[in-house]
Amino acid sequence: MFQLTIHAGDTESQVVAGESYRNLADYLQDGRRVIVITDANILKYYGDFFSAYPVIEIGMGEKNKTLDTLAHIYNRLLEYNADRNSFIVAVGGGIVCDVAGFAASTYMRGIPFGFVSTTLLSQVDASVGGKNGVNFGGYKNMIGAFNQPQFVLCDTTMTQTLPDREFISGFAEIVKAAAIRDAGLFDYLEQNADKAMARDPEVIRHLVVESVKIKADVVEHDEREHGERRILNFGHTFGHAVEVFTGVTHGEAVSIGMMMAARRSVAACGFPQSQVDRLEHLLVRLGLPVTTGARSEDILRILLKDKKRESDFIYLVLLREIGKAVICKTPIEEVKGKKYK
Amino acid sequence: MFQLTIHAGDTESQVVAGESYRNLADYLQDGRRVIVITDANILKYYGDFFSAYPVIEIGMGEKNKTLDTLAHIYNRLLEYNADRNSFIVAVGGGIVCDVAGFAASTYMRGIPFGFVSTTLLSQVDASVGGKNGVNFGGYKNMIGAFNQPQFVLCDTTMTQTLPDREFISGFAEIVKAAAIRDAGLFDYLEQNADKAMARDPEVIRHLVVESVKIKADVVEHDEREHGERRILNFGHTFGHAVEVFTGVTHGEAVSIGMMMAARRSVAACGFPQSQVDRLEHLLVRLGLPVTTGARSEDILRILLKDKKRESDFIYLVLLREIGKAVICKTPIEEVKGKKYK
Repeated sequence: MFQLTIHAGDTESQVVAGESYRNLADYLQDGRRVIVITDANILKYYGDFFSAYPVIEIGMGEKNKTLDTLAHIYNRLLEYNADRNSFIVAVGGGIVCDVAGFAASTYMRGIPFGFVSTTLLSQVDASVGGKNGVNFGGYKNMIGAFNQPQFVLCDTTMTQTLPDREFISGFAEIVKAAAIRDAGLFDYLEQNADKAMARDPEVIRHLVVESVKIKADVVEHDEREHGERRILNFGHTFGHAVEVFTGVTHGEAVSIGMMMAARRSVAACGFPQSQVDRLEHLLVRLGLPVTTGARSEDILRILLKDKKRESDFIYLVLLREIGKAVICKTPIEEVKGKKYK
Repeated sequence: MFQLTIHAGDTESQVVAGESYRNLADYLQDGRRVIVITDANILKYYGDFFSAYPVIEIGMGEKNKTLDTLAHIYNRLLEYNADRNSFIVAVGGGIVCDVAGFAASTYMRGIPFGFVSTTLLSQVDASVGGKNGVNFGGYKNMIGAFNQPQFVLCDTTMTQTLPDREFISGFAEIVKAAAIRDAGLFDYLEQNADKAMARDPEVIRHLVVESVKIKADVVEHDEREHGERRILNFGHTFGHAVEVFTGVTHGEAVSIGMMMAARRSVAACGFPQSQVDRLEHLLVRLGLPVTTGARSEDILRILLKDKKRESDFIYLVLLREIGKAVICKTPIEEVKGKKYK
């Protein structure tokens, strides 16, 4: 079991990797009334355990990450007489944790909450870092808050039951973490790509722990993304736009987005072409796509509404080398002039 | 002009009383694109000035303090291409500031904002303190956040154009501030009640400044209402329920709620009956109601859903004497057993 405390603002958030969901009670405070928010898939596999608590079920998939789902949760919380002495546990992947975290952050102006993170993607990325929210007006995560959960339990054995496509989606964020911060982890990925694809428990555990360490370190220094945290957006500026436009999974979109950013990094930051090829090769081995059929104009239109935009500039995260990212404040006009493949 | 800085968490909020709204630009940072959120009434009186900015208009009255109004604001912000470099200025009373403050706190996970506070009630209470939000499921301020505006400009001359009933509503929060913390201010109110009713500019200015000082002091010590801040709820636990059930104004409801709490304080805290009478006399002189025709059962039903409830207890704010409040963690059963008039 690996345990790490994230200090952000005046809050503490505990991330525990390799812990069993069955030990949830060890992380709950006495006297707080627990309410579980989850989806049908989790109830199918783990309902016996979590149905011991009052449960609020939300729909599955990105299309449910909406203000309407939020209103549904608020209504159910009222029905359960939830108050400031209640505690919300979100059990699921990124969507459940994002929506439930935002609901908890705003119900009665905020009640405490924790996550049992069940997908590879949410364990390595979505549930760590305190960002939450819903989509709005066709844009991802347009409405939300920064607020840390009290704990994030990452039970890596739960990832064994994921469908292949969802499992693989998680690799994209692991590759991202390695690419921006940790050349050693990148090497490890190259050496263990086959084992990772075969869901070798020890390899998966190692990948989750190392990714969480990287993310926690970045978030601690810049919870609200005024500076350094932006490097976590490597592959995401283009990726978000690809995801919205093409409907591929988040991980697939980030994979495509990382390749767009990597190719741009060659001219902009002297990132060697050989390293672009190395990144591409690893992503392909991990079952991830590296190109999109979408048109540049469509990707750009969405990208220009991105949260990372500040008036006439956009923050692009590019690479100098594997393990070293750089944030480039780039004029919109320059981004517009460039075609993406 | 009176200026005060509230430090809460890692933010600073500047409250300026006796400043003209015409000096708004002095409080804005260079380079930020300003978007104004306001209502038809403000546009009628002050539209010439504020229409220099892009404006988002919301409906008037408590019935517009909803998730739907929030969605309307988000949509308009998207149309204006608002981003993290934008700055929202809410111009209005408590409803405009509460909704706009919550919209700003959640759009793109939070963009900065400030208030031009236009009603007596919002100047002395609603716009200071960093609480924002909307009503939900029949309950007031059920959904919201704690987040400080960068500034609150209280132009006391703007209160001269308020309808009588709305103006008078503000006195309730001033009396509350005096009753819980400042016997001297209570004396001043008794001595100047007639001038206050006649909207004497110097008296109004003094009342706004003193009320802001009291609130700022309490909020600085306990932004998120874990303890001391609860004393600001004097008259509000009962008042909120009265407001929801009877539809009287917020100030009228707080006035009735203060009398309920004061009467209860006699037996519970040794608050002298003569002081109950003194409070009642002052409220009546200031044009405020001191009783409600609503039935106890209905008030209680709403009250039990109050945010200040923690499982089997409720925090009631009672008085020991004028200027000295005490927070009483009271068993629900005890509250239920008591009739209120």
